[in-house]
Amino acid sequence: MKDTMLDRSIIQNRGFANTFDGDRITGFQVALRNPNYRGLTSSLVDGVSVTVAGRTWTHEETSIVLQGRAFTLAELRASTGARWNADEVACVKVPLEGGLPRGVHDVAVDIRLRAPYFPIEFQPNVFHAERACTLVSPVAQPRFKYGVSTYSYTGDMHTIMTLEDAMAEIADMGATGLEILGEANVPGYPEPSKAWLDTWFANLDKYGLEPTNMGSWIDSRMWLDRDLTVEEGAAALERDIRLASLLGFSFVRPKIGVTSLELDPHPIWDEAVERNLQLAADKGVVICPEIHSPTPIKHRVVDDYIAFIERTGTKNFGLLIDTGIFMTKHAFFGLDGMAEPTSVEEVPVPLRALNVPASDLREVMPYVVFIQSKFYNVDEDLVDSHIPWEPVLDVLSETGYTGYLSSEYEGPRDPGRGTEQVRRQHAMFHRLDAEAGRA
Amino acid sequence: MKDTMLDRSIIQNRGFANTFDGDRITGFQVALRNPNYRGLTSSLVDGVSVTVAGRTWTHEETSIVLQGRAFTLAELRASTGARWNADEVACVKVPLEGGLPRGVHDVAVDIRLRAPYFPIEFQPNVFHAERACTLVSPVAQPRFKYGVSTYSYTGDMHTIMTLEDAMAEIADMGATGLEILGEANVPGYPEPSKAWLDTWFANLDKYGLEPTNMGSWIDSRMWLDRDLTVEEGAAALERDIRLASLLGFSFVRPKIGVTSLELDPHPIWDEAVERNLQLAADKGVVICPEIHSPTPIKHRVVDDYIAFIERTGTKNFGLLIDTGIFMTKHAFFGLDGMAEPTSVEEVPVPLRALNVPASDLREVMPYVVFIQSKFYNVDEDLVDSHIPWEPVLDVLSETGYTGYLSSEYEGPRDPGRGTEQVRRQHAMFHRLDAEAGRA
Repeated sequence: MKDTMLDRSIIQNRGFANTFDGDRITGFQVALRNPNYRGLTSSLVDGVSVTVAGRTWTHEETSIVLQGRAFTLAELRASTGARWNADEVACVKVPLEGGLPRGVHDVAVDIRLRAPYFPIEFQPNVFHAERACTLVSPVAQPRFKYGVSTYSYTGDMHTIMTLEDAMAEIADMGATGLEILGEANVPGYPEPSKAWLDTWFANLDKYGLEPTNMGSWIDSRMWLDRDLTVEEGAAALERDIRLASLLGFSFVRPKIGVTSLELDPHPIWDEAVERNLQLAADKGVVICPEIHSPTPIKHRVVDDYIAFIERTGTKNFGLLIDTGIFMTKHAFFGLDGMAEPTSVEEVPVPLRALNVPASDLREVMPYVVFIQSKFYNVDEDLVDSHIPWEPVLDVLSETGYTGYLSSEYEGPRDPGRGTEQVRRQHAMFHRLDAEAGRA
Repeated sequence: MKDTMLDRSIIQNRGFANTFDGDRITGFQVALRNPNYRGLTSSLVDGVSVTVAGRTWTHEETSIVLQGRAFTLAELRASTGARWNADEVACVKVPLEGGLPRGVHDVAVDIRLRAPYFPIEFQPNVFHAERACTLVSPVAQPRFKYGVSTYSYTGDMHTIMTLEDAMAEIADMGATGLEILGEANVPGYPEPSKAWLDTWFANLDKYGLEPTNMGSWIDSRMWLDRDLTVEEGAAALERDIRLASLLGFSFVRPKIGVTSLELDPHPIWDEAVERNLQLAADKGVVICPEIHSPTPIKHRVVDDYIAFIERTGTKNFGLLIDTGIFMTKHAFFGLDGMAEPTSVEEVPVPLRALNVPASDLREVMPYVVFIQSKFYNVDEDLVDSHIPWEPVLDVLSETGYTGYLSSEYEGPRDPGRGTEQVRRQHAMFHRLDAEAGRA
């Protein structure tokens, strides 16, 4: 019945934001889950103090929003008809002219709750919580459109977050693009129920999101004894173009089986794609295989894709750039449960620095339709540990790209880390946009 | 849309059980979530090996159930039309005449998945996972009815599990009783929506559960400047009796505000209850305050409750025993975020050994209507670290109690710990039942 989950931490990541009076920033807010084991009536909520960067606002200085109603401490104590239920978030508002700067902040709260079933000598119960939270503070006029792939939340999806949580998270950062993996995020794939479709569209509307790209697979080695035929490969792609179109996506990224260590796609790829070009045109979908490390831009795989575009003259096939190719430092992480590497040789190949220069992008940009902003770590100063973003974004901007940057976090999968990292990446993008003159 | 969540661990706690052919135990099963970031077609699932207690069954010896269909490895490789979606559990079946013994087992699995988009040199991907899991193995004819209070899952509810997960978990242990806290588990409390009620009853039916006891509060100190009046206290109780009855509960535990360190209930208690006795009778509900540490059985609070029963002659008021009173060892845990105690003086009062002898139960049993089987730790040999259960259960059995033991875990709140601990307590109860001659 409840379609969203709460962060384990009492302090929620979602909801941490500056607050406005018209265009003026007049404070900030922190969202909290109820630290008690029961929900309770608002008069038993005795205020919340908030500390950020060593400055404390007492429980008498903050206000709190419960079930859409704002209360000062005095109002809380006299209130009736409102509750802080166990499955609901309370939003604490802190007055601060100009608000907090964009970035990672250490936030602490003391939540005061009164419990009549405890001896009064021990009252109120004070629940302390701390967390580093990222304030995205989006600029109003960014250079690009921003989105998120649910791949960023691998491990969290279905365990601590639902698809609606992912949508709410994207909207909370001021982003608008939702990228999914068909086989990971569509219950009953490839045939979602009518009820699921209704909820899908209702939630897109609720969170103001646009479906961007849907990940698809052409599993050429589906069988041990033979490869897929062209017909079968074309049918797999057709199935996903139809599903993507039904869900409102504009892009389909086919992940085609490979035949070499350099990720040459299976030879059926071009015919399987070509047979779907008319369908893609009819459905308004662009098919876009990803250029992914260890394949650089200057490579026969990319040349072949471009030759295909030139030969067919199609507008429904293009390049998706996975920004992992621009890494200048190795990411010393395991992938999906692998052990942490202790030497470069142990680093999974796609996590090694491929050092593709941003300038290589320039000549292929006419063929680029989508950017997956793959990353492994953004530190607490909003600096990416592996990818130099400034030259990459500058080339995109200079060549007139105004499409999506769709976050694809692929670092360690500790619960909640993906959510936090994506917030940091978006804060970083907005910082770079601000530095590039956007407000 | 999805009303249940999956355990973060690849090996799920729910679903670990012996398997039967008629009455004969012929093996066991382990439930797994998909370790990959996408769902996949069944022919890419290349089997699962399972290791328990040092014995391994290879991926050729196990079978796997996907979407309700059972497959051997050869059948998997040739299969069409089935999938292991990312939000679905696969059940691995292991042949083992006589099955596994009741208790905690170290389970390890290697899940082999083929990914055509990886170079074939690195295939299949093998995902290793390990977990200690508890096999409850319920006896068919237990001495008592078993249930669980959702309080056991505090911190997990709304963050990693839904109410439906709690219901599924209870059913998975062979238990039948669902105890909730009205203010914690009923969205929109005190007025749940029609849609929520429909789901509530559908799920009770789906999981074969009976609503047992609903926790309620009479918040005598709801206001800072005055206590609740009798009228207000009676109204609070009436509200919850009506809600409990609507949801199908037979018991309502009012938590009444206290006026002393010995937890004397607020003096409005008797009149607030008495005004509701007719309503409780009409609704088939028994009101049962809890006898909770530090209040022992031989205490004026209990004497007053019994005198109330004798005076009114009511059948709709009785005693609920919280088994924390039988602790013979202190539980060195903090509660709800408090620091771990380093001395007895720092142990929260209800977690100290009150040492009430089980024999004290005997003379109050005519007034006892419900048992909350409070506990803090059951170790991996299925032995409670603080409570001697055998004499307690023997008194219950000898005095003819056949009602519920409703698990109330109150130990540390690490994610998933409550679920695991409740499974251990139920396995312990069934072991004691078996030792008492029940099969």
